[in-house]
Amino acid sequence: MTESITINCIPMKSITILALILLSLTLVAQPPRPPAISSPEVNADKSITFNYYNRNAQRVYVSGEFLKSPVAMKRDTSGVWSVTVPPVTPDIYPYSFWVDSVQIADPNNTYIFANERFKRSIADVPGDKPLIHSLQNVPHGKITYAYYNSTTLGTTRQLLVYTPPGFEANGKKKYPVLYLIHGGSDTEETWTKVGRANLIADNLIAQGKATPMIIVMPYGNVRPKPMPDFTKDVINDIIPFIESNYPVIKESKGRAVAGFSVGGGQTLNIGLTNTDKFAYVCSYAPFTATEEFKNNFSDWKPNTTTMNKQLKLFTISVGTEDFLYESVKQNIAMFQEKNIKVEPFIVSGGHTWMNCKLFLATSLQQLFK
Amino acid sequence: MTESITINCIPMKSITILALILLSLTLVAQPPRPPAISSPEVNADKSITFNYYNRNAQRVYVSGEFLKSPVAMKRDTSGVWSVTVPPVTPDIYPYSFWVDSVQIADPNNTYIFANERFKRSIADVPGDKPLIHSLQNVPHGKITYAYYNSTTLGTTRQLLVYTPPGFEANGKKKYPVLYLIHGGSDTEETWTKVGRANLIADNLIAQGKATPMIIVMPYGNVRPKPMPDFTKDVINDIIPFIESNYPVIKESKGRAVAGFSVGGGQTLNIGLTNTDKFAYVCSYAPFTATEEFKNNFSDWKPNTTTMNKQLKLFTISVGTEDFLYESVKQNIAMFQEKNIKVEPFIVSGGHTWMNCKLFLATSLQQLFK
Repeated sequence: MTESITINCIPMKSITILALILLSLTLVAQPPRPPAISSPEVNADKSITFNYYNRNAQRVYVSGEFLKSPVAMKRDTSGVWSVTVPPVTPDIYPYSFWVDSVQIADPNNTYIFANERFKRSIADVPGDKPLIHSLQNVPHGKITYAYYNSTTLGTTRQLLVYTPPGFEANGKKKYPVLYLIHGGSDTEETWTKVGRANLIADNLIAQGKATPMIIVMPYGNVRPKPMPDFTKDVINDIIPFIESNYPVIKESKGRAVAGFSVGGGQTLNIGLTNTDKFAYVCSYAPFTATEEFKNNFSDWKPNTTTMNKQLKLFTISVGTEDFLYESVKQNIAMFQEKNIKVEPFIVSGGHTWMNCKLFLATSLQQLFK
Repeated sequence: MTESITINCIPMKSITILALILLSLTLVAQPPRPPAISSPEVNADKSITFNYYNRNAQRVYVSGEFLKSPVAMKRDTSGVWSVTVPPVTPDIYPYSFWVDSVQIADPNNTYIFANERFKRSIADVPGDKPLIHSLQNVPHGKITYAYYNSTTLGTTRQLLVYTPPGFEANGKKKYPVLYLIHGGSDTEETWTKVGRANLIADNLIAQGKATPMIIVMPYGNVRPKPMPDFTKDVINDIIPFIESNYPVIKESKGRAVAGFSVGGGQTLNIGLTNTDKFAYVCSYAPFTATEEFKNNFSDWKPNTTTMNKQLKLFTISVGTEDFLYESVKQNIAMFQEKNIKVEPFIVSGGHTWMNCKLFLATSLQQLFK
């Protein structure tokens, strides 16, 4: 009797948990879904604990842009591998696990580095005070995913449009537009998912440090089409799409172009061959070993006076540990030799999205002023 | 001399390729980034070829919802593992690779299943004619990512809002709204990234089969908060946010709620306890083994006459191979016993997003008519 009462009294919560375990076991084929574990866990002292479940792996490492080299994780008797890495500077860092021969994103972390080639996760280490990319209690803009027809590329493509807080689609106000391009194997989502461009803009606008603007994040890869086709896509398809669908300033003083890595090279190609269209050109750690860059700039003889008048801002940013640092310095020197007013912005750090956020946060305070 | 000429004459394309290889080697820590390979490749006969690079793995399998059991991939001398699976019915399928002990998303596929617990990829097998979820040459709506303050949950949360083609934020037209909830470990992005809710709506609106509507896709997980808090979040925070920011019909005849799996259970809880607010309730393969469902419905004595008048549509959809099929059938019977007008929609197939798309495409043609 006592036993039967006990059985009848299993609290509903336990039944729910049992049901959820059953659901877990059934939803994914074989082997069964691993237990729910939390990873990464950022501790109060800014150390980070990583957890990963695998009963059969021989070796598991965590590799991340806060580490000089991968760190071995230790397995407990239940098959959960863990390690705590020493405190790191607050920022957002890409990381991955190496499980024997395989590099993987952290299965328990929803935040993935938007990329076409690798699968990495994002660890968000908050500051004691909110960082410039943190979600803060300020008015928020919106990100819109829209399709446009690219006559250049003969296809329908997706782009992202950040509209600032208080944006009115049919209001009287005309906004300036920043065209913001991702890196080589990134996607149109990388500037928001990894670069937090929307939150950086929200915060700088709330602080009165940035002019409210629209930020257009296109998809910059045109493989196997040649690179110049992306320049055409921006000029002939994307700008007309934006200007016929959003209330924007349709003059060069209301247009900026910026980009990182391969996108930094595209920025130079797009911006400097169209200074009648873009008054602001911000190139971040540009990768310029392309045929398009050579064609555009090896025998380049611009009308310097005109160009320096047209360009209200031309910056090239790079970190001193960036593997492209020497190449970027040479490009800065090349533009200076041609008497183009370029403002170098040299910081520490490598070819990273931590630096990207810094570069963008810096540019947003300079644009359209 | 000849040699030096040869060196000077390396075509720019080769230099670009060399530079890109160098870039590849440098950007990712160790080991070097794998070669660029294409995966998945959908062949003309709808067979699918999967490719994966790993020089050190012992065994690699592809596992997918188009397969009864995982299929072994074969390694060539360069370390590329491949397999071609027989032709499959055109649809979008989740799949993953098993590399020794590790389940991974396909590193060469950008399209990832938005989920908090597992990392899978999406294979898109097109039909000979466009499918209802295919990107077609029709007017496209937009997806907006917005933040709202949840007073219920004490946090700022993200939700997605689909606005139909021709949507005007400040126009006279008032739109009906479908609140569409994802499955248990999914995210607010799963209905668009895996369910293609936006493209299904675009296509059905273009064909005149669906009423132009706004689709709100919130984030349904409230762990560790109890489930009823999501119901409160929808009623007290999300609906007011949408109704103060979008031109919508603010009556029950202009509101629908739908959801899959855990979200299907949430749909029943939210919809049937608020029939004054929702005239349309569409539950897909609902998971109902929750305390909230028990509290709401075990001693439920609704005013059937009132409720059947309020509900213009109440459907429960499920596949006969769904592991929840028996439970769903019992729930349908329970509602029928209480004389609630429920329309069962029973199809073949399992607890899958292939069925989700079918359920949604069916609902969209029934709502707001």
